[in-house]
Amino acid sequence: MGNDKKLVESITSMDVDFAQWYTDVVKKAELCDYASVKGCMVIKPAGYAIWENIQKELDRRFKETGVQNVYMPIFIPESLLNKEKDHVEGFAPEVAWVTQGGLDELQERMCVRPTSETLFCDFYAKDIHSYRDLPRVYNQWCSVVRWEKTTRPFLRSREFLWQEGHTAHATAEEAEERTIQMLNVYADFCEEVLAIPVIRGQKTDKEKFAGAESTYTIEALMHDGKALQSGTSHNFGDGFAKAFDIQFADKDNKLKYVHQTSWGMTTRMIGALIMVHGDNNGLVLPPRIAPTQVVIVPIQQKKEGVLDAAYAVKDALKDYSVKVDDSDRSPGWKFAEHEMRGIPVRVEIGPRDLANGQAVLVRRDTNEKMTVALDTIAQSVGELLDTIQTDMLERARKHREAHTYTATDYESFVKTINEKPGFVKAMWCGDQACEDKIKEDTSATSRCMPFAQEQLSDCCVCCGRPAKKMVYWGRAY
Amino acid sequence: MGNDKKLVESITSMDVDFAQWYTDVVKKAELCDYASVKGCMVIKPAGYAIWENIQKELDRRFKETGVQNVYMPIFIPESLLNKEKDHVEGFAPEVAWVTQGGLDELQERMCVRPTSETLFCDFYAKDIHSYRDLPRVYNQWCSVVRWEKTTRPFLRSREFLWQEGHTAHATAEEAEERTIQMLNVYADFCEEVLAIPVIRGQKTDKEKFAGAESTYTIEALMHDGKALQSGTSHNFGDGFAKAFDIQFADKDNKLKYVHQTSWGMTTRMIGALIMVHGDNNGLVLPPRIAPTQVVIVPIQQKKEGVLDAAYAVKDALKDYSVKVDDSDRSPGWKFAEHEMRGIPVRVEIGPRDLANGQAVLVRRDTNEKMTVALDTIAQSVGELLDTIQTDMLERARKHREAHTYTATDYESFVKTINEKPGFVKAMWCGDQACEDKIKEDTSATSRCMPFAQEQLSDCCVCCGRPAKKMVYWGRAY
Repeated sequence: MGNDKKLVESITSMDVDFAQWYTDVVKKAELCDYASVKGCMVIKPAGYAIWENIQKELDRRFKETGVQNVYMPIFIPESLLNKEKDHVEGFAPEVAWVTQGGLDELQERMCVRPTSETLFCDFYAKDIHSYRDLPRVYNQWCSVVRWEKTTRPFLRSREFLWQEGHTAHATAEEAEERTIQMLNVYADFCEEVLAIPVIRGQKTDKEKFAGAESTYTIEALMHDGKALQSGTSHNFGDGFAKAFDIQFADKDNKLKYVHQTSWGMTTRMIGALIMVHGDNNGLVLPPRIAPTQVVIVPIQQKKEGVLDAAYAVKDALKDYSVKVDDSDRSPGWKFAEHEMRGIPVRVEIGPRDLANGQAVLVRRDTNEKMTVALDTIAQSVGELLDTIQTDMLERARKHREAHTYTATDYESFVKTINEKPGFVKAMWCGDQACEDKIKEDTSATSRCMPFAQEQLSDCCVCCGRPAKKMVYWGRAY
Repeated sequence: MGNDKKLVESITSMDVDFAQWYTDVVKKAELCDYASVKGCMVIKPAGYAIWENIQKELDRRFKETGVQNVYMPIFIPESLLNKEKDHVEGFAPEVAWVTQGGLDELQERMCVRPTSETLFCDFYAKDIHSYRDLPRVYNQWCSVVRWEKTTRPFLRSREFLWQEGHTAHATAEEAEERTIQMLNVYADFCEEVLAIPVIRGQKTDKEKFAGAESTYTIEALMHDGKALQSGTSHNFGDGFAKAFDIQFADKDNKLKYVHQTSWGMTTRMIGALIMVHGDNNGLVLPPRIAPTQVVIVPIQQKKEGVLDAAYAVKDALKDYSVKVDDSDRSPGWKFAEHEMRGIPVRVEIGPRDLANGQAVLVRRDTNEKMTVALDTIAQSVGELLDTIQTDMLERARKHREAHTYTATDYESFVKTINEKPGFVKAMWCGDQACEDKIKEDTSATSRCMPFAQEQLSDCCVCCGRPAKKMVYWGRAY
């Protein structure tokens, strides 16, 4: 095997250095690369194909709930960004400013959008007049820029791709309903497609979005026990509507402010796929998101009939996304290569298999091998892909459960955070001072107040005063 | 009908003021709106849905030729933009410059990409090592910014959406082949999907892309007789490769420069759809690009069975994109509204139709009505959509042919340009001085040297010296 193993051997083990393992997978699976522009990514074909599948799946789910896609400008004039006080405070320190257009100095500088609430509000103020114009349920797919100091591929970069939904409603109830609906779309997508189990809940005031009345979140646990905020959905109430004067004539002929929401999911989910499912051989992709679901590797491919058989199997698997690797590399090299890229199922077929009317299937997630009959291979592969999808979600769920702890006193809380990577469930009084102290003492943050509340004790784990909420705490990306 | 006609009556007639008619259609069909940011557009749902269909169709055609999608950064550092001399001269005067990131002044300013040749070259220089790495056939879907002084929705805006393909090849022949191949993909797409006939040809040196060795173009004729450059494909030879040092070890172990191409199509094609097919009732969309292909308008919809029948027709037309308009507007209002939006086929169904087991189909492009049997309506609608698609292309082709003239002497050339909107075919010596004089005298430019050359005379229409090429001339958007 010698050289054949080169690709694999050059990855750092995830147990030795998780951060370096992550970087190695990103690089060796050719997902993305650093660009000359500091903190910006080049998303390469293997990475972008995953993003295209994420887009396709999410977009379909959005449209089923009545979402319409639009496109807003890339620039926000400073005066527009300044209209909502909390929002500008949250974003102004981390935007990129355009000050020159062509050869001229601009009269007013503009930022490259870090998010587009202000643009949608500016548009809605002109576009919404009557209750007949509501609800507006718009979304856009675009890139945004946030001038981060430290960056990591997919997880935190100065530019990233995302979708941002922005809605306007006649009533507070309808806005709240849409906020929760979209959070559930994200959660279902993560679990059903990405095989990533998530905790659904609400952010504390300290952690909520700049300008929001309430922020809902889905939180996932990575393999190293750190949390990843995976999608957020915000209810703005009528705060932005008042700042931007977005009013409509209701059925009763009275002018009222609209109620708004926004919600987003980003390319950081590619990072989540790596860190939830990956192993020391590289990426492991769930079948429903994998750009290539099956790779066929012919064995002794120069022997008569082998390549023909490989292509016949590809034809038989026409309902799936399948590649035949008939390159001049050795089978061992190919195995390592396609494992690195995370292709869910490998089909091996050689002269002996052919003689026996069979082929070997190898699962990427468990490395398990099985021999199947060629004449029913489509059914075998279909069932195996389903099994892999289900098992990957279940495995990730078990990992999360095995790394979710509870604490009812502060000493054991701090000890658990420090010694056991994962979520810690603990009660909280609702006071930001306790969140600040916990962050100071442990660098953990409140990830969310889950919808599924439990009464672990009556007292705040930090200050001992009466508890209001159970909170998931953890260190986060 | 009175009020029902309001929507239609408020459009300017295209014969009275074509520019105002265009603006009216853009606005009344709710395709896009101006934003607070000068020269930038808000693309509204009806406009964006057309762009999504353009993307889907083009992307499928690209992938069939081996294109892979990627994503490059939005910013280009000034030093990178400066690397290829002709390129920077072409673009530097019209870019937006970012000079501040967060609270800090940048050490080097960056522009928001006006096009991404320099970013792809920078990436390829690091990423391409061997002939095994070639060809690279990458594309990205994104927005670009060009700081234009005067802007018009879809046709010329400071930000627009597009795709840009960027390829690298081992040989000059392969690069040239790809350049022509992609031009043909654009041309076929325009004719087969948008029903817009195009002239395929090469740009003169004066009109070619900044930094290109040769630029190929497809040129379409709008209803007012002005030309619209609809897609371009550039062969860079090894010029960029030398400027960016993109070399590979060939099979003979020698280091060689790659040969590169780029090609793009933009949201201006939505403007082309309006200006080629639209009429005084609004937008007219070819069936293959229309987000909604059929609208069903129930007549006397409160009468028993009418709405049920309308929805039964929708079910029967499940292979098409169909909407039922059961709003409380009058039928006349609905007719005008859906005509404005360009929906190819309207189905009218009322109590009397129902009793007779039939429905009325109305073609948007000709206003022709026909009565069809309900039990074979899917077949009738399918055939009608095909007919409309074919007829629209044919009508546009006839319009172009009727507005294409030839001139062999300068006096009649100038007179034709001035009096007869359209293309003028005329011979040219190959000297830029004649192009300059023609532009000075008539404001027409050389649109292209068509692949289908004709020998109209032996002499340049401008200077009388020996002619080298037949050129399409015209005023252009």
